[in-house]
Amino acid sequence: MAAAWADLTIDGRSRATDHELLGLAADGPGQAHFELTRPLARFDGKLFGGTAIAVAVALAEVETARPVLWTTVQFIAGDTQIGDRFECTTEVLAEGRRAAQVRVTARVEGREVFCALGATAHRKPEAIEAAFERFPFVPTPEEAAPFLFPIPPGLRAGSAAAWRNIEMRSAPPLEGSVVAQDHLTIWARVPGRQATPAVMAYLADMVPLSIARASKRAGGGSSIDNTMRFSGATADEWVLLELDPHLASGGYGHGGVLVWSPSGELLASGSQSASLLLFD
Amino acid sequence: MAAAWADLTIDGRSRATDHELLGLAADGPGQAHFELTRPLARFDGKLFGGTAIAVAVALAEVETARPVLWTTVQFIAGDTQIGDRFECTTEVLAEGRRAAQVRVTARVEGREVFCALGATAHRKPEAIEAAFERFPFVPTPEEAAPFLFPIPPGLRAGSAAAWRNIEMRSAPPLEGSVVAQDHLTIWARVPGRQATPAVMAYLADMVPLSIARASKRAGGGSSIDNTMRFSGATADEWVLLELDPHLASGGYGHGGVLVWSPSGELLASGSQSASLLLFD
Repeated sequence: MAAAWADLTIDGRSRATDHELLGLAADGPGQAHFELTRPLARFDGKLFGGTAIAVAVALAEVETARPVLWTTVQFIAGDTQIGDRFECTTEVLAEGRRAAQVRVTARVEGREVFCALGATAHRKPEAIEAAFERFPFVPTPEEAAPFLFPIPPGLRAGSAAAWRNIEMRSAPPLEGSVVAQDHLTIWARVPGRQATPAVMAYLADMVPLSIARASKRAGGGSSIDNTMRFSGATADEWVLLELDPHLASGGYGHGGVLVWSPSGELLASGSQSASLLLFD
Repeated sequence: MAAAWADLTIDGRSRATDHELLGLAADGPGQAHFELTRPLARFDGKLFGGTAIAVAVALAEVETARPVLWTTVQFIAGDTQIGDRFECTTEVLAEGRRAAQVRVTARVEGREVFCALGATAHRKPEAIEAAFERFPFVPTPEEAAPFLFPIPPGLRAGSAAAWRNIEMRSAPPLEGSVVAQDHLTIWARVPGRQATPAVMAYLADMVPLSIARASKRAGGGSSIDNTMRFSGATADEWVLLELDPHLASGGYGHGGVLVWSPSGELLASGSQSASLLLFD
């Protein structure tokens, strides 16, 4: 697999940039590791959910040399900290002509911290290509203002530092745009990086925010899991996250997300559950 | 766990009916089995995806004595047949005061056939209770006509036999109802059984159908995985499935589902990826 790590290119997009973003290094067949650095952590220094799903996507792709189809990651232990070394094992559970089934487990000092399931698949060249959702008309990323997280002012500085490799801009629907009630639209990018599936997964871990907002409360939540499904297409840099809160109940919330290219191509869809953390 | 199996009641609903529907039997701590019978199989005799996720939900609940929050199941091997004995192992990966993290693996003759991740959680009594989706106005189950699967007439008889413990009725939106384009609304039940989370998961494995329909093609697809997220509420029998196809690309498709009670309560949401199988 060592050669594949350096060389993996899918549909003309190198995946080496994903490994660089995540600090992923190969240790042998099915084995890799990364270190939890500041930009890969939440503002409290714990593992950011987007990092975990991006790692799972990147490992599934590199171990099967196919583009990812879907991935679900489950967060098992929350007591991680900056400097932790995550040892990742990727099992290829089944491998067909087109699709492969994968499981990724990540451990810190022997304790299982997250587990991911997923599939990768070569796409058929002459198949139906269609999206059944409507692209929301919003300001372009260039016109959009910075997105301000709805958190208490005292936490803003720490939060801004934690997000330093993610840029988000507020993209409220333009007048006349048909966007479902309570959907939250935000431009997101890792500046200078192509929006590969791993990068989209890294950016899209924002569903809890939309649940708190739809509940008319300040705050967000702690992701319990994260599922992402990919069309196979990628974008140059900016993607539009259309967050779709489903419900809040008993201290938990569920919701979805659509990921759009700037030209209106539906690139991915996702869903998450979260333990809600509200500040007011 | 033996006592829990017979006695598990969550919010006044016994789960014994789930175990009966699925033929689930306890074999000791964390171990259980079921046999693939005709009603639990697809029309071609292979494992029905809804059966696998229902088993995962039921095992997660009974092994942690908590109501399920979310579950994702991954289908690893497709070569199952009626009569197969599925040996299921449930690992409780983490257990807190409220939430527990679970993994279920199912094997036939030692081969791993499906794997599921999920969480169960005691709900907080005084939390925000809200749904952010609109209930589609449709005919009542009593007014609705049987749902006819869009499959070639030659396969109808086999299909009808396979579905004999699921009843589905066509519920197109009423005039003036605000339902997003391409959403497919269907009433579903297992006659005589309460719609517990396991039963909802069993019924909701229908996303591929909506992707084929939105593509204006006859057919459906073979589920690659299935994710379900639950509010914690249940229904007496009928639930409304609001299927939301996301996209089709390269021979695969992704989509979501909302599960509603007849009175308009949002009970669950889900998502799936599928390998599309089109008949025309």
